[in-house]
Amino acid sequence: MRDVFQQELQEVQQRLVEIAELVAEAMRKATTAFQDSDITLAEEVIEEDAHIDELALTLDELAIQILARQQPVARDLRVVVSALRMSANLERMGDMAEHLAQLTRYRFPDKVIAKGLRTTFKEMGEIDIQIAEKLIKMLKSQELKQLEKIRDLDDKIDSLHLSVFDKVLSDTWAGTSMDTVDATLASRYYERFSDHAISIARKVAYLSTGEWAPDIDEITESKA
Amino acid sequence: MRDVFQQELQEVQQRLVEIAELVAEAMRKATTAFQDSDITLAEEVIEEDAHIDELALTLDELAIQILARQQPVARDLRVVVSALRMSANLERMGDMAEHLAQLTRYRFPDKVIAKGLRTTFKEMGEIDIQIAEKLIKMLKSQELKQLEKIRDLDDKIDSLHLSVFDKVLSDTWAGTSMDTVDATLASRYYERFSDHAISIARKVAYLSTGEWAPDIDEITESKA
Repeated sequence: MRDVFQQELQEVQQRLVEIAELVAEAMRKATTAFQDSDITLAEEVIEEDAHIDELALTLDELAIQILARQQPVARDLRVVVSALRMSANLERMGDMAEHLAQLTRYRFPDKVIAKGLRTTFKEMGEIDIQIAEKLIKMLKSQELKQLEKIRDLDDKIDSLHLSVFDKVLSDTWAGTSMDTVDATLASRYYERFSDHAISIARKVAYLSTGEWAPDIDEITESKA
Repeated sequence: MRDVFQQELQEVQQRLVEIAELVAEAMRKATTAFQDSDITLAEEVIEEDAHIDELALTLDELAIQILARQQPVARDLRVVVSALRMSANLERMGDMAEHLAQLTRYRFPDKVIAKGLRTTFKEMGEIDIQIAEKLIKMLKSQELKQLEKIRDLDDKIDSLHLSVFDKVLSDTWAGTSMDTVDATLASRYYERFSDHAISIARKVAYLSTGEWAPDIDEITESKA
């Protein structure tokens, strides 16, 4: 019974990794589509998000079946419950990539990013991709050091997010209202992607250190 | 044992109602603060959100303990798992009210809403409050008819959300970039609040009809 349970937990972990890999790929494509106004790539991201949603739902079903069959307690129970939560976070990360693709499509054939912000958004996209890659590593290996790396990258995202607002609110901003709307939304999507990653990384860290209780940090960051 | 379990489920339900009541109150205050640039009220909302977060965490702990102690299966298991998810939705609804209060505070003593949008946002706020009230009813009574009402209200929110973009992207829009940023963010907060409510209402409906499997609707709407 115990062995079956361990196998099932491994299955859960593999599926989380699989979804995280699709999410990383979605963010890679969405960022390129967004930068280059690549409508074909944008449509791919939108289409493929349904697959991420489906995998997340299937993983939830598996987790519920494991709870029913194995009746885990203590740490094992928390592993399964946290898989349910991580799957919700991953699903939302996929949505953020999809939202970027949708913005790209709405504005096509116009560029979605105003001139003064191209470098900033390129950087935000690259950092979110790195975050997703480190998250995959962490889900595979439970390496705690990835959490610190993800936190550092998230700090960068937060400061780029603020810099977008500084830019569009500055006297030199020459963008149209549409540019302002797009910049506001895109920046928020990139920033929320990173928040969800932090939330997952923190759960993995808790599970491997045994320190489950969410700290005040989690309460604060969940509001960002 | 069965009686204890039923008592515990009632406790879970009462706590969900309690959190939903605080969320409704937060949205009431946030909407007034936002309309009237009432900094004191805005600060109350921000301060009280920590309490909502805490109650949601405590409810999660209770749900996990129930899973461990009662080892529920079948529908009972789904009730407990969905309580975990509803608590996450409620916590995010509280965050949306808090974000509106934060916007109000950032811009104080200036008005946060541009002139042409005051009526639209007043309406969005009133509808979100109604949604929260219907959600409380539904959590208390499991009345399915509330789901339809919440859906109808959510449709109104969606069309108001679109009308905000129409307005700020129209030729007649005379707002500053800051007005555009604020309108974009506030509209999204009101719209996400409603999305989370729909998500909770749908879970309650599934549990009382026994039709658990999420339909394609859920997949689609979760992306909005």
